[in-house]
Amino acid sequence: MTTLECLFCDRRRPFEIYNPFCPACGAPMLFAPSRGKKSVRSSATTAAERFADFLPLKKYDRTLSLGVGGTPLLRIGNVIDQFGLPEVYAKNETANPTASFKDRGTVVAVQKAIELGIKKIGTISTGNMAGSTAAYAAKVGFSCLVFVKEDTPQDKIVAAAIYGASIIRVKGDYGGLFRKSFEIGRRRGIAFMNSVDPFRIEGYKVTSYEIFEQLGPAAFRAKAPLMVFVPVSAAGHLIGLIRGFRDLHDLGLIPRLPVLVGVQASGCAPISRAFRRGSDRVERFPNPHTIAHAISNPTPPGGELALRLLRESGGSMMDVGETEIRRAHALMASREGIFCDPASATPLAAVLKLKRRRHLPQGARVVLIVTGSGLKAMEAVVDPAPLDIRPADLETLEEVL
Amino acid sequence: MTTLECLFCDRRRPFEIYNPFCPACGAPMLFAPSRGKKSVRSSATTAAERFADFLPLKKYDRTLSLGVGGTPLLRIGNVIDQFGLPEVYAKNETANPTASFKDRGTVVAVQKAIELGIKKIGTISTGNMAGSTAAYAAKVGFSCLVFVKEDTPQDKIVAAAIYGASIIRVKGDYGGLFRKSFEIGRRRGIAFMNSVDPFRIEGYKVTSYEIFEQLGPAAFRAKAPLMVFVPVSAAGHLIGLIRGFRDLHDLGLIPRLPVLVGVQASGCAPISRAFRRGSDRVERFPNPHTIAHAISNPTPPGGELALRLLRESGGSMMDVGETEIRRAHALMASREGIFCDPASATPLAAVLKLKRRRHLPQGARVVLIVTGSGLKAMEAVVDPAPLDIRPADLETLEEVL
Repeated sequence: MTTLECLFCDRRRPFEIYNPFCPACGAPMLFAPSRGKKSVRSSATTAAERFADFLPLKKYDRTLSLGVGGTPLLRIGNVIDQFGLPEVYAKNETANPTASFKDRGTVVAVQKAIELGIKKIGTISTGNMAGSTAAYAAKVGFSCLVFVKEDTPQDKIVAAAIYGASIIRVKGDYGGLFRKSFEIGRRRGIAFMNSVDPFRIEGYKVTSYEIFEQLGPAAFRAKAPLMVFVPVSAAGHLIGLIRGFRDLHDLGLIPRLPVLVGVQASGCAPISRAFRRGSDRVERFPNPHTIAHAISNPTPPGGELALRLLRESGGSMMDVGETEIRRAHALMASREGIFCDPASATPLAAVLKLKRRRHLPQGARVVLIVTGSGLKAMEAVVDPAPLDIRPADLETLEEVL
Repeated sequence: MTTLECLFCDRRRPFEIYNPFCPACGAPMLFAPSRGKKSVRSSATTAAERFADFLPLKKYDRTLSLGVGGTPLLRIGNVIDQFGLPEVYAKNETANPTASFKDRGTVVAVQKAIELGIKKIGTISTGNMAGSTAAYAAKVGFSCLVFVKEDTPQDKIVAAAIYGASIIRVKGDYGGLFRKSFEIGRRRGIAFMNSVDPFRIEGYKVTSYEIFEQLGPAAFRAKAPLMVFVPVSAAGHLIGLIRGFRDLHDLGLIPRLPVLVGVQASGCAPISRAFRRGSDRVERFPNPHTIAHAISNPTPPGGELALRLLRESGGSMMDVGETEIRRAHALMASREGIFCDPASATPLAAVLKLKRRRHLPQGARVVLIVTGSGLKAMEAVVDPAPLDIRPADLETLEEVL
């Protein structure tokens, strides 16, 4: 039996397909792992299989994975040199099958759905999650229903619809749509795998396992801290990463957790604002406005859970302004060859901000989670002013040069 | 010393940065490997390092690779079932750092440039090669000059310019531009890494090594043939794949070469047309017109070399029509969760064509090379008619469903 637990009221209950929330306090519930002995299968091919004991599945089926995970961890040497940073690595999640980290959650949620006999799935998305959920639905032969915000760019919608999903552009409040999706799911037998789906969150743990394997145990034992910066929208990704590192700690593989730093855009920073105030409550962020569309979520459903887990584990929240995001976005591409979306540039923006303020611990090692591809956020660079693009013809070519 | 050889006149000469063509016959020259003993370093992390003895580099530096290669080989079970196909796998090259196979060539060509002390590079491109070359130039700190065709969509240009390259939109004949680029390179000290660059081609060999490792030796020993279908534009990719399988054959790892099938769009099929006529000469294809922009090259510089290598190795060329390409493109996404560009769908279109004509050998195993991402060819799906996209508001949502 699959059990969910609420970290706020310690309540446990069996998993119900259409309702991942605590009946007592309304918080998103998480997967409650069995207490049996778990171990690492070191000879398995992928990190998901090596750490399969920690996933909420009877069996992880790699043939359904579309090749998720195993993404590169790249030292960003040019930016390190330019700004005098300590060792900084980018975990490039844009190398996933649908070009974002969402695939890691989707592959686990979809395999759980197969286990439970579900054949209709759905999600709510502003872009990356729609494409990821629709692609995996195509692969396993499920029908897929996707609700998107009315103002979602057509390109992002088409990039999900191409997988055969039914897409509904919904006018109205996004938070309201989030709650309504579960009602609709219950009535129509559709399992909605939204941002804080408990199985999706378990899938994000695999990124932590990979970072451990790629950096090696010594990085976790060093005196100076290891810091992991991640963009935060609904907060499912951040929660998954913390849980993944906890698994490694429980196994005795790392002596302490790395310092997790969730990053939001200052133009939509409900969790960062609550963290700074020392509050446990996340309030709706008024008039969100940022180029980092992928993390522009004024009512993050996992916000309070994230605050609690961050405080328990010595992590923190930050936010960064539009100019800082644009600058970091350009640096990632022009100095490191990584074309990510603006949301994915917020971790670098945060590190540069800490450096400027002399708050970056001496000798720290830093991992930036690069969550999504710039190819899905071309609107962020449509103003080609700072880019060097010139016209010529064969005859005038030499002059133009 | 790095030596180039011409397969047509058996001529050899030292490599010159700005001139990869045979002084006798004008054909593109290829890297002439040393005759020393070569072996596989089976404990190395990536295929490029395991087979480093076969690459034209003193040392393959993985830290400059941006995480290239190691792409998934995915069995396309739903399409197999729908059409009664034999075992068919998609080698998903869209998982590369800039979302196309070009990265495999770029990483080798750029490392060779470092070895040779070059710091300025350039390329000519309709899209994927521009992004790939510009990204690696950013990573290694080179300046990068990119010539694109005048009618290249703005999105594709921006997706390369973001890496800091200088982009020139050139009006005029593409074939003329190809030749002119080498002149400009010579005068300005810029190494142009165009489609048939000899080191770029060596990089494509690694795909063959990976296919061998992923399928296992038995697939190459089976009675029924192993067939590898690849989209063909300038033909550098096809030439590289054949050379990679030859390396495996020379090592005694495979008893014979797989059957390579180059695929073009019928709307621009200069090499396929020459192959069908039994000709050694590739003539300019008049009025090219196809949705598969990435392979719309009416004057492929490697065409005649490809014809020769295909004939020597028992391979062949095919071409497929626009309806076939569109259908295969939709199948890849909606049945297999792989959103590729139309050019990348031509291999599946070719397999389905052979199946319809009962020309697919019984029990054959098939590998389709999926060369580039659909995210860079959104114009191919801008007509959303066959996609299911509907509007609603929170109140009418249930009715719309």
